[in-house]
Amino acid sequence: MPSFDDPLFATYAIAATLMALKVMGQGWMTVYRMMKTNRGLVNPEDLIPGPLNRAPDPAQLDLDDYVDRSRRMHRNDLENIPAFWVVGLLFVLTGPALALAQVLLFGFVAARAAHFVAYVTKQRHEVRATFYTIGSVIVIYMALHTLWSVLT
Amino acid sequence: MPSFDDPLFATYAIAATLMALKVMGQGWMTVYRMMKTNRGLVNPEDLIPGPLNRAPDPAQLDLDDYVDRSRRMHRNDLENIPAFWVVGLLFVLTGPALALAQVLLFGFVAARAAHFVAYVTKQRHEVRATFYTIGSVIVIYMALHTLWSVLT
Amino acid sequence: MPSFDDPLFATYAIAATLMALKVMGQGWMTVYRMMKTNRGLVNPEDLIPGPLNRAPDPAQLDLDDYVDRSRRMHRNDLENIPAFWVVGLLFVLTGPALALAQVLLFGFVAARAAHFVAYVTKQRHEVRATFYTIGSVIVIYMALHTLWSVLT
Repeated sequence: MPSFDDPLFATYAIAATLMALKVMGQGWMTVYRMMKTNRGLVNPEDLIPGPLNRAPDPAQLDLDDYVDRSRRMHRNDLENIPAFWVVGLLFVLTGPALALAQVLLFGFVAARAAHFVAYVTKQRHEVRATFYTIGSVIVIYMALHTLWSVLT
Repeated sequence: MPSFDDPLFATYAIAATLMALKVMGQGWMTVYRMMKTNRGLVNPEDLIPGPLNRAPDPAQLDLDDYVDRSRRMHRNDLENIPAFWVVGLLFVLTGPALALAQVLLFGFVAARAAHFVAYVTKQRHEVRATFYTIGSVIVIYMALHTLWSVLT
Repeated sequence: MPSFDDPLFATYAIAATLMALKVMGQGWMTVYRMMKTNRGLVNPEDLIPGPLNRAPDPAQLDLDDYVDRSRRMHRNDLENIPAFWVVGLLFVLTGPALALAQVLLFGFVAARAAHFVAYVTKQRHEVRATFYTIGSVIVIYMALHTLWSVLT
């Protein structure tokens, strides 16, 4: 069984759990933004009066950029992070140099953290795209490295 | 190699495969609802006449709450379950008490099953939010437990 | 620790990394289509003039089928491939016959490749649905096989 005493596997576990906390936290950012603005709901039944919605209004179902931004960020996470989870695990199992694994795995975490900041502060497209690219290239590199390692 | 003879790993494998069946089943619920109502299509080419669509009508591409509800449920699954898969695996590899692992892993499965029922029967927001919260807090707890275990 | 010398695990690693490259590549297809048409943007701040957008126009935020098709393909990937990653791993750990594992795992990769071609070339619904079904049934079969194997 993989052991956390193996620094490669520990590196993976730290990066993977940090990204899981990021994904789950994005869900809570959406909840926070819905609660704060009382807008951006997506289900008709959310207009039933209750503790979460004391004065319902059909306009609460309209698209709201402040809330939807968090959903778009969540979607971008889902397009990138699950692939990182599986590829990162297989990559460390190929036995790469520890320094390389640390640069790639923590580099991915840092790129996604920077992407989060750029997205939430509405930075121009070029800034967001740069951090997206760094994360994506890291996953693609690790996938090709793993594939090469298994096939040879 | 992790073995299913290890009750911790067997617990994980049962919970993880149940959630995979849930996610795949949600896709089939969308298919069923599209077939039943002949509505909620998302691709222009789905209006080509054929066995799946004998009398096409452009209104079939309009948003349909009955079909879209299943897609929203699918999206909510994807926002929560892949993080559970990776965090649950790393969590059981930290060697927690079996009873704790069973409560958390099967608790997540039960919370997501209850979330499914609340969503499909259009329960008020507070009910759905309660089960979402239980599942999300379990994943966050397992991630923090794993991170703590690896770092100390 | 699972070893790539085990042909079952090597089969899984090849199929899993190929699907990761597919998912990451779908993100780049969306980028390519946005760049080529200069349309299909989703964030208001992407209208800030810059190297990626020299002549901004609010119509760039309108839904564009050419760009959105790639996003819909990505979404369909996310509804199927992460479940494949976790179920495929657990399935090979149950120690199935190698030939069975190869047929299922590479069969899933082939079905998703065919689904990609059908989607991008706008084939009729029946064609796309056929390849979706093959991939989905493979994941469901592997999940049931794994569950059965763990419970008995």
